[in-house]
Amino acid sequence: MIRNLTTIGFDADDTLWHNERFFRVTQERFAELLMDHTPADIGPQQLERLLMDAEKRNLGRYGYGVKGFALSMIETAIEVTQEQVPASVIKELITAGQMMLSYPIELLPHAREAVEAVAGRYKVVLITKGDLLDQERKLAQSGLGELFDGVEVVSEKTPEVYLDIFLRHGDGAERAMMIGNSMRSDVVPVIEAGGWGTYVPHGLVWEVEHAEAPEHSPRYTEIADLSGLADLVDQLG
Amino acid sequence: MIRNLTTIGFDADDTLWHNERFFRVTQERFAELLMDHTPADIGPQQLERLLMDAEKRNLGRYGYGVKGFALSMIETAIEVTQEQVPASVIKELITAGQMMLSYPIELLPHAREAVEAVAGRYKVVLITKGDLLDQERKLAQSGLGELFDGVEVVSEKTPEVYLDIFLRHGDGAERAMMIGNSMRSDVVPVIEAGGWGTYVPHGLVWEVEHAEAPEHSPRYTEIADLSGLADLVDQLG
Repeated sequence: MIRNLTTIGFDADDTLWHNERFFRVTQERFAELLMDHTPADIGPQQLERLLMDAEKRNLGRYGYGVKGFALSMIETAIEVTQEQVPASVIKELITAGQMMLSYPIELLPHAREAVEAVAGRYKVVLITKGDLLDQERKLAQSGLGELFDGVEVVSEKTPEVYLDIFLRHGDGAERAMMIGNSMRSDVVPVIEAGGWGTYVPHGLVWEVEHAEAPEHSPRYTEIADLSGLADLVDQLG
Repeated sequence: MIRNLTTIGFDADDTLWHNERFFRVTQERFAELLMDHTPADIGPQQLERLLMDAEKRNLGRYGYGVKGFALSMIETAIEVTQEQVPASVIKELITAGQMMLSYPIELLPHAREAVEAVAGRYKVVLITKGDLLDQERKLAQSGLGELFDGVEVVSEKTPEVYLDIFLRHGDGAERAMMIGNSMRSDVVPVIEAGGWGTYVPHGLVWEVEHAEAPEHSPRYTEIADLSGLADLVDQLG
């Protein structure tokens, strides 16, 4: 087994900066706005459940990101009110979506020091899903842009996608590590591709991103937060 | 001046396959749906004008692509009816947007032969704006995917973006040619970056993509359709 790492991939949302909490706030706002226009037996939790169902149903056509989420909110609002939702409520949903596209970036603890610790010594690549322009905006506002050798916004994080990225940006997946908060997207497929997967849990995880931890893989690690990253990389590098 | 071309970039929508006509059909459908809910003095042309204004206004937050267009349709429908548009009409707009995300790909004349003529002999890169997943879907359905050495979905086509892409995929912009139907996005910025820009007009051009032809540049060419491409490239190559 080749142990020498040459390439480090970072996930962006909820690995380097907060993101999921803006979805949660917007989901709550969605339920609040719809409450007055739905039958009394439909509560906020059920409204959020229906929204989640729409998001999943639409993933194949909209992909990831805020624009698809906004369209799913509008679709759900129309369905759950049996086409009785007032246009003023739809307008509020559009505004809520637009606010998500302009929220200020707040780095997670140790994010900057972790990227700085490996930048220069390794090829460092940001690998993220979502709307292209929005992900670029967030990276620019994060102030971390200059530290990355490459930025890849992808439509899905599969083993094939990681194989391709780590070939183009480094020396293949065997010598690459991916760091992220999604077991399903950042950890499992990288290990399947022959690389190292490092899980950094974040309190809030979107339901779609859950997966079993690959506990038995020697290439799997979990760290409590990004302060542990530099040491971990040095052990392998 | 180094003349030897090593890299050829192709735009996708309305260069290799039809796209704009689906926007036109949907715009007409938008006007048709709204006619019954707007004052009598607002005609279809004005409705389409207002939609175009919303698209332009939202480009900075939504970027290019169908999802942002769908959100702009809904926003315009709410505004132009002073929040009186029925949810059933919004639902139709959402459906119209979803249809745009699944329309069948129809190649433009000579598209396949043009890409085949240069593939293998040059690095061939697809460079396109729009929603990531949707552009990937269209490329997959076009059957041309295997011919490209690289695919770049970008949020904007600036000289800097072309410089970066042609450095990563070839030997720099000086030895690269970009082929496309948008003077503003495919031709002018590539020539500014030091490359060759080849304009292939398409009957329908989105208003945003208009620009003056760089007639005086020795690196500018216009060809009537893609059947002229192989000869043009050979002259320079």
